[in-house]
Amino acid sequence: MSDTIQNAIDYLQETRDNMLEDYKQLLRFPSIGADPAHNADVKACAEWIVTELRALGFENCEAVATGGHPVVYGEWLRAGADKPTVLVYAHYDVQPVDPLPLWDSEPFTGTIRAGRMYARGASDNKAGVWGNLKTFEALLRANGELPVNVKIMFEGEEESGSPSIETFVATNKERLSADVLLNCDGDLQPDAPQLVYAGRGIVSAEVRVTGPSADIHSGLYGGIVQNPLHVTGKIIGSLHDEAGRVCLPGYYDALQEASPGEKARIAAGFDAEALRENAGVAQFWGEGLAPAAERATVYPTLDINGMWGGYQGPGSKTIIPAEAGFKVTMRLAPDQDPTVVSQQLKMHIESFASETVQVECNIGEEAWYFQLDMDGPWLEAVQSAIAATFGQRAQLVRTGGSIPILGVFNRLIGLPITAFAYGHGEGIHSPNEYLDIDSFCSGLEAGVRLYHNLGAVS
Amino acid sequence: MSDTIQNAIDYLQETRDNMLEDYKQLLRFPSIGADPAHNADVKACAEWIVTELRALGFENCEAVATGGHPVVYGEWLRAGADKPTVLVYAHYDVQPVDPLPLWDSEPFTGTIRAGRMYARGASDNKAGVWGNLKTFEALLRANGELPVNVKIMFEGEEESGSPSIETFVATNKERLSADVLLNCDGDLQPDAPQLVYAGRGIVSAEVRVTGPSADIHSGLYGGIVQNPLHVTGKIIGSLHDEAGRVCLPGYYDALQEASPGEKARIAAGFDAEALRENAGVAQFWGEGLAPAAERATVYPTLDINGMWGGYQGPGSKTIIPAEAGFKVTMRLAPDQDPTVVSQQLKMHIESFASETVQVECNIGEEAWYFQLDMDGPWLEAVQSAIAATFGQRAQLVRTGGSIPILGVFNRLIGLPITAFAYGHGEGIHSPNEYLDIDSFCSGLEAGVRLYHNLGAVS
Repeated sequence: MSDTIQNAIDYLQETRDNMLEDYKQLLRFPSIGADPAHNADVKACAEWIVTELRALGFENCEAVATGGHPVVYGEWLRAGADKPTVLVYAHYDVQPVDPLPLWDSEPFTGTIRAGRMYARGASDNKAGVWGNLKTFEALLRANGELPVNVKIMFEGEEESGSPSIETFVATNKERLSADVLLNCDGDLQPDAPQLVYAGRGIVSAEVRVTGPSADIHSGLYGGIVQNPLHVTGKIIGSLHDEAGRVCLPGYYDALQEASPGEKARIAAGFDAEALRENAGVAQFWGEGLAPAAERATVYPTLDINGMWGGYQGPGSKTIIPAEAGFKVTMRLAPDQDPTVVSQQLKMHIESFASETVQVECNIGEEAWYFQLDMDGPWLEAVQSAIAATFGQRAQLVRTGGSIPILGVFNRLIGLPITAFAYGHGEGIHSPNEYLDIDSFCSGLEAGVRLYHNLGAVS
Repeated sequence: MSDTIQNAIDYLQETRDNMLEDYKQLLRFPSIGADPAHNADVKACAEWIVTELRALGFENCEAVATGGHPVVYGEWLRAGADKPTVLVYAHYDVQPVDPLPLWDSEPFTGTIRAGRMYARGASDNKAGVWGNLKTFEALLRANGELPVNVKIMFEGEEESGSPSIETFVATNKERLSADVLLNCDGDLQPDAPQLVYAGRGIVSAEVRVTGPSADIHSGLYGGIVQNPLHVTGKIIGSLHDEAGRVCLPGYYDALQEASPGEKARIAAGFDAEALRENAGVAQFWGEGLAPAAERATVYPTLDINGMWGGYQGPGSKTIIPAEAGFKVTMRLAPDQDPTVVSQQLKMHIESFASETVQVECNIGEEAWYFQLDMDGPWLEAVQSAIAATFGQRAQLVRTGGSIPILGVFNRLIGLPITAFAYGHGEGIHSPNEYLDIDSFCSGLEAGVRLYHNLGAVS
C-alpha cells in the first residue's frame, strides 16, 4: 500500500510544471458567482471541470442545473462496496475583484511570481477543486484506481451564500449519499497546519431607503424634504452601541457561553498579532464584549459590507438623492437560528420607515453554523495524512467565516463532516489573492495519503 | 425709443426657429465643471461663447484663465459715458447628468418635445448665456447699438461653488467695474413671474473614513476590526436630531429671526404644495423648527449629497471595507459666516476619529448668502420690463439655493445687484432638465425691454 502512495507522489513530482500550467486554465474563468454579468463564465467554468472529471474516468459527470449556478457532480465508485464513500466538497465560484486598480497582475490570468500563483480564486477555492482533480489523477495514473469511492460536489454559489444548495441537497439525497462529507474549502500551511473545525452561521440582507421621486436640488428642498442618506446614516449608526454590541432586540438571546475546553481550543488557534497586522489596524475593536479570539470566531457580529447613495463622482453635486442603500451580513453563533435573526434585523431596520421615507430590508442568505465530526475516524484520517506529510498534526481552529453548505449537511442530512485543504494562500476576498505553490504541491501529497487513509476506515 | 424695442422684438420673432437650432450648439457641450474628465469640454464651451460674442461686435472678448475653468469676458462700451455700465452674470457650466438611465433623451443633444427644449443646462444656466447673446443680437441687428454699456462675465464653476471667482474678481476689479451687476442665473415663468431676491450661503465638504489597510474578510475579521462604514453611519446619524435640527455645536448661534415683513414676503413667494408634489414626497420634514417657507429659504440646513463605501455591485461581498466617505453641503442663513460654520463641521466630524479609524473632513466651497439691491432704480428697471411683457410685476421670492458669486459681489465689491432670468424650466440638477420654449422667447422680449430700461437709469 505504501507503494500506492509513493507511486502517486512520484507522479505528482514529475508532472508539477504541467500541473501549474494547466491550473491557469481553471483560473482563467472569471467565475464571479455573485455578479449576473458573469453567469456565462460561471457556467463555462463548471463545464470545463466536468470535462476534466470525465477525462479522469469519473462517471455520471454533469454540471447539474440548480435555481442558480450549476453544481459539478461526478462519481468514481469502483473501490468496492466495503470501502467508504466520500462526498468531496469544494467551490469553483470566486469573489468579485474590485477594486481592480489594486491588483498587481490581472486577476483572471494565473501569474506566477516568487513561488506564488496570483489570481482571484487561486486560493479560495479553485485550489480545492484543482487539488482534488490532481490527487485523483495521481492515484489513478499511478495505481489505476482510487482507494475509496468518491462523489464530487463542486458548488458555484459559495461566495453568494449557497442559495440553491439546500434545495439541491434535499432533491438529490440518493445521489449524494455517502459515509462522510470532506470539505476542501480552506487553507493549509505546511509549517503550521491548521484545520477549521467550526464556523459561524450567516445572514445577509440588502436595505433600500427611498425618499423623493428623483434626485432634487438640495438648495431648493434642503430643510423641507427628508434626505434618505440621513436616514441610512441613522439606521447604520443604530446597529452597534459604542462598545461594539449589536443593537438588535433579542440578538444575543440564543448566545451560549463556550465551554472552558472550547474557549481554550479557540484561544490556542488564534494569532491576534498576525491578524491585527494583516488587517493593517493599530488595534482591535469591540474589546470588553468577549476575548478577541472569541469575537472573531464564535461570537456573533454584524457588518455593513457596502453602502451607497447620491453623487459619488469628483467635485460636488447639490442634491437630495432619491435613494440610498447598503448591504449587511451577520455572522452567527452556534444555536443562533438564522431565520430568527434575519427577522430581528428586518424589523429593526424597517422601523425607520416613516411618512417621509420608505425603508425596505430584503433578506438574502440564511445559514447555520457548522462543526466537524470531532470524535469519529474521519478527522483521524485527515490528521494522520497531515502528520505524515508535514511532520505535525494540524492545529484545530475555529473560523469566524461561514460555510453554508456544511450547515446544510449538519442539520439537513446529519452526515459527518471532515475537512482538508490544499495549500496555503492569502488575499482571499482582497486584491492580489495568491496560492503558495510549494504548499499546494505538498498538499497534493497529503491528499494522496488522506484518500488512502479514508480507504482504510471501516 | 419704442421703435427700438419693437424692431428688436420683430427680429426675435422672425429668427425664432434658427435661434432654437443654434441653441443646440451650445447645449451640445458637456460642460460639467465639477468633473475633471470634462475639463476640455468646459473650455471648448467657453471658447465657443467667446466666438459668438466677437461675432456680435463685442470687444476684448476672452476666455479668461483662472485657477479653475475660464470666465468668459467681453464688453460693448459704445453706449456712451452717460449711460450705465451693466455687468452681466450667467454661468455656462452644468450639473453632472447621473443617473443617466433616467433621461428620456441624450442630455447633451438639445431635443425639442412638446414645446420644451430638453438638455442638461437647457435651463440652468445656458438659458442665461443664450438669452443675453440673443437679446444683444436683436438689439444690435435691429438698431445697430445697445442702450447701455455691457460687460459680460459668464462663469464656468457655478455648479462647483465658484472656487476661482473670488480671486478672479479681486484681481480684475478694474475690468469688472460697473454700476450694477445683473444676475441672469434663474427662472422666469410668464404666467407667474418671480424674481429671486436673496439666497443662502453654502459650505461644502468631503469626508473620508479609513480603517483596515485593504478590504478584509468580514467572516475572519468581523467582531475584532472596526468597520469604517459603521463609523460613517454614526457620523451621518449624528448630524441631525430627530426633529431635523443640525447638531453642530454653535451652528445656530448667528441665526437671526427674520423681520415680520420679511417673513410675510417669504411666505407669499412660497408654494408648498407645488414643491411637495415636485419632490414626490408624502409630506415635508423638519416641521417644528420653523415654517416650511423659511426652512426652505432662510433657515440653515445640512444635507448629505452622496455617500459610498465597500461593495455596491450585485449580490454580496463579505468584506469589511478599507474606507468609506460622503459629501456634505450646508445652506447658510444670513450672517452665518461660512468660515466659522465649516470649522464647526470639521471639528464635529473629525471628533469621530479614534485609535481604530481615521476620519478626515476636507472643506470645499465657503460662500456667503446674498441679497439684491431692493431700494435703488435697478430692480424697478427689471420689474417694468417684466410688467410690460407679462402683464404683471414679478413676485419677489427668496431661494434656498446659493449663488456664491453674488455673495462675493455683495461683500467684496459692494456693487448693487439686480436679477433677471430668461424663461422657465424644470428638472435642474435632475434627469430630463428642460427649458420651456415659449417662456424663453417671451423672456427674450422682456430682455430687450430690460436693457432699454437700464439704459434710462441715470
